[in-house]
Amino acid sequence: MSNTSPAALFERHQELLNRAVEAIHTREYWSPYSENLKKYNEEAVKSAPADFKALCDSHFAIEGVTGVKKITGERSPYGFDLGISYDQPDMNALVDEMHAALPQWRDVGAKGRVGVCMEILHRLNELSPLMAYTVMHTSGQGFMMAFQAGAPHAQDRALEAVAYGWDAMKGIPETARWNKPQGKMDPLVMDKQFHIVPRGVALVVGCSTFPTWNTYPGLFASLVTGNPVIVKPHPTAILPAALTVKVAREVLKEVGLNPTLVSLVPDTVAEPVTKALALNPKVKVIDFTGSSAFGNWLEDNARHARVFTEKAGVNSIIVDSVSDLKAVTRNLAFTLSLYSGQMCTTTQAIYVPKDGINTPEGKVSFDEFAQALATATSKFLSDNDRACMVLGAIQSDATFQRIDECRKLGALVLDSETRQHPEFPEARICTPLILKVDGKDKAVYSEERFGPISFVIATESTEDSMRLAREVINEEGAITLGVYSTSDAVLQQAEELAMDVKVALSCNLDGGVFVNQSAAFSDFHATGGNPAANASLTDTAFLVNRFVVVQSRRHV
Amino acid sequence: MSNTSPAALFERHQELLNRAVEAIHTREYWSPYSENLKKYNEEAVKSAPADFKALCDSHFAIEGVTGVKKITGERSPYGFDLGISYDQPDMNALVDEMHAALPQWRDVGAKGRVGVCMEILHRLNELSPLMAYTVMHTSGQGFMMAFQAGAPHAQDRALEAVAYGWDAMKGIPETARWNKPQGKMDPLVMDKQFHIVPRGVALVVGCSTFPTWNTYPGLFASLVTGNPVIVKPHPTAILPAALTVKVAREVLKEVGLNPTLVSLVPDTVAEPVTKALALNPKVKVIDFTGSSAFGNWLEDNARHARVFTEKAGVNSIIVDSVSDLKAVTRNLAFTLSLYSGQMCTTTQAIYVPKDGINTPEGKVSFDEFAQALATATSKFLSDNDRACMVLGAIQSDATFQRIDECRKLGALVLDSETRQHPEFPEARICTPLILKVDGKDKAVYSEERFGPISFVIATESTEDSMRLAREVINEEGAITLGVYSTSDAVLQQAEELAMDVKVALSCNLDGGVFVNQSAAFSDFHATGGNPAANASLTDTAFLVNRFVVVQSRRHV
Repeated sequence: MSNTSPAALFERHQELLNRAVEAIHTREYWSPYSENLKKYNEEAVKSAPADFKALCDSHFAIEGVTGVKKITGERSPYGFDLGISYDQPDMNALVDEMHAALPQWRDVGAKGRVGVCMEILHRLNELSPLMAYTVMHTSGQGFMMAFQAGAPHAQDRALEAVAYGWDAMKGIPETARWNKPQGKMDPLVMDKQFHIVPRGVALVVGCSTFPTWNTYPGLFASLVTGNPVIVKPHPTAILPAALTVKVAREVLKEVGLNPTLVSLVPDTVAEPVTKALALNPKVKVIDFTGSSAFGNWLEDNARHARVFTEKAGVNSIIVDSVSDLKAVTRNLAFTLSLYSGQMCTTTQAIYVPKDGINTPEGKVSFDEFAQALATATSKFLSDNDRACMVLGAIQSDATFQRIDECRKLGALVLDSETRQHPEFPEARICTPLILKVDGKDKAVYSEERFGPISFVIATESTEDSMRLAREVINEEGAITLGVYSTSDAVLQQAEELAMDVKVALSCNLDGGVFVNQSAAFSDFHATGGNPAANASLTDTAFLVNRFVVVQSRRHV
Repeated sequence: MSNTSPAALFERHQELLNRAVEAIHTREYWSPYSENLKKYNEEAVKSAPADFKALCDSHFAIEGVTGVKKITGERSPYGFDLGISYDQPDMNALVDEMHAALPQWRDVGAKGRVGVCMEILHRLNELSPLMAYTVMHTSGQGFMMAFQAGAPHAQDRALEAVAYGWDAMKGIPETARWNKPQGKMDPLVMDKQFHIVPRGVALVVGCSTFPTWNTYPGLFASLVTGNPVIVKPHPTAILPAALTVKVAREVLKEVGLNPTLVSLVPDTVAEPVTKALALNPKVKVIDFTGSSAFGNWLEDNARHARVFTEKAGVNSIIVDSVSDLKAVTRNLAFTLSLYSGQMCTTTQAIYVPKDGINTPEGKVSFDEFAQALATATSKFLSDNDRACMVLGAIQSDATFQRIDECRKLGALVLDSETRQHPEFPEARICTPLILKVDGKDKAVYSEERFGPISFVIATESTEDSMRLAREVINEEGAITLGVYSTSDAVLQQAEELAMDVKVALSCNLDGGVFVNQSAAFSDFHATGGNPAANASLTDTAFLVNRFVVVQSRRHV
């Protein structure tokens, strides 16, 4: 028996929904879920570490799920095994069951689905303090980032998807009376119905570095438009997804719906299941965040599905001239340090003319600029406790090894060093590696080097910087582009460049906003127009490709 | 020098635009362009036949276009060569030129582009009487259909695309101020710009049977969202497209824009150019109407582009029971006869239980139903002049030959006969071929047999009819599905079936509305959810995939 209904949930959350729809159209600052930990339930905040520990070293049971296999293997980048086991269900049977449950969810209608999605988000928000620990100890993010990016910011992005979904669906009437005049004869009159019909079972493939932030948009976009959703988390970051799925199923059950509509399929690095799931013909929508190789494989092979991918890219900054060198290098030092460059928005390529750049204090040479960046970074990370908080831990062995492998790719501007975390001595913590290379060494800097690795690139001129950035972004993609210039003409050229290669541009960031930060309801994350991503989080296109409209008509 | 501006055109047409945006959201009856020939300028109507003749047997020059090749070869299905030659430009040079002109069109902005598109439509509407003759003598449609479907209805669909484009683009603000509170510190304040950026050069590949109706949605959808458009008409139906392109270029020139933004690339059946155009990496959007083989080729090979296809399908009708057999068979007779079944919406498969159907007069056997349909069709076509008007002419040799080839596929219900057109003795005119087959002969009726060919299929029961229709539509696609039943339960089952296979449903059509008719601003043409089409004409998804949003931000 259910004690509430999807329709009641819609009414409960309607005010927030209306505000969210307003926000997606004004794109001014708005955030429904507080990023201030103090605004959360004090008890929940206090008990979160213990709640997290209680999840460790035990089986994560999800009601109604029986596994054909036990999945384990998560290890915190802070140096300990989580020791959690999960059930992997029989996948074909699961897809069939979800496909069979689809009409129920479809027939709940747009309003009801919005209500259910918003209730799930409400509960996830209450769970934020615990979610922070699960994200921290899977992704390696520092605690405060794991809290903000992993909980409220991820929830913001999810609500953004729900708002775009509602905005698109409410634009299609449920019914219409069609009354066509026929001159002196009686008019032709028909009643028409318009059904929002989801494409099919949806699959969301999570990544290890942002297990909620990059999973929620696809999850909620598919769900709100009527598609049952399988969450297939990265094998090293299952817990945040499992917790999310559990909450979703609780809400579904409470309103009398089939909890299988949101299901978890965990797997291991040794025995991955994503390809098998993606090739199931009943899977019609796929969201993926991860490597270009796998994203391209999905696009090329899951042709029966709509595939939304966020892949690798080479985020770039063009330095032409600055009005405050210290402020600029401080800003960049933070960008390069935050979560050890393990963000899909972190800068990798910094283009600087070899003849140097203009500053109010006169010309600063290429080497002086590189040195200033190194100094700013070292200084920013001089306090070890703060450094560890900002850097977080390195998520994967591959990223850790990559730092070493990349050392030989250029001349050292700043070497990467390991750090000791005050609380977790086994944590894998590394400061940024900054190299300098020549613009001609394109092969070196035009390949994504995921992690705390960046290149200061000596170019012939700002024009040459623009040319190189254009080539690299056209070929490899990018989610962010920054420009520093005191010249309006150069800023205008950068704006043209950004439009041509379809990348978001940040101009002269030298304060408390960073090129790698993207705010829900205001910043579009990726454009979907270059190789880094084939979709944007979140815009109308991200939603409307997930359903079709089926009409029926009959004479009155 | 231009004597008006895109902005002025926006204002001129704004009232109509607002009405169109209202219409796409209510989907009640609305048609901006009259389908009554009498509402058009009397002189234009009177001079249209002569204007058409003046175009024949001469070179169709488009200002600013020089050809590297002369293209000829159109022949009216009414039995005479048009004798018109066109310039085929150097295609690679053209794409480069259009790509270079893109920023100009992009920077006109959404309002200006809407204004220009609506002015083009206004001029096309004035040209409707002439357009009717060009459509008639390329597609073979009867004159009245060529006028209505080829001019006002095609213009309606074009305006529908413009309205969806405007609706989507105006939902994205041009600028925003982002003001994020920072507790006791000064807020973070940024100014943001959001640019609508088109994907690239667009290609619209026309078909021979609806050279305007199926070309305009893609043309105007791409154009209004900022993409320069190449129109590549079917080699046997160039003239309506050429006329359209000419009008568009005149408007572009008048407002001081580069006319190359809308360009024609004609080709011949012997030397087709579509593949070469589609594979040009600067071509980023492709619209196609035609065979499944070629549509699938485009989807599989033009992976650098967004591809919108309308392909083959098997439109179906399920007959369970009727309240007025005569009215039903009369309605179906019209559907099968109109333009000799050369519509992508014409019924091919009519499922009828072998035990017959219930009527108020008692059970009507399968054979009696088939006979009633044959009688209704013969009767409807008994007046030769009227028959010729409704049937139009057979567009292609292949369709003409197919009628003969299909005769052997089942037992004759009604044989196809050729007719003599009162005005054009050489016209290729054929009445419908109706065959009866068993439900088990799926291979016969589940392949699209384009043209005046349909099958009455004997099934075990209405349930069996539903099962077969489900299989065939899932596998082969369909744009239309009809159902006849006096049972609410059966109608509900049909509604479920329609949602499952994602096809538009028409229930109990027995009056002046026909399953193959689709009204702009009310009926969605195709859903994009089954093999017959990967997009709908026209919904939001048809528009928003043609552009991305590129933002820039800077501190205030």
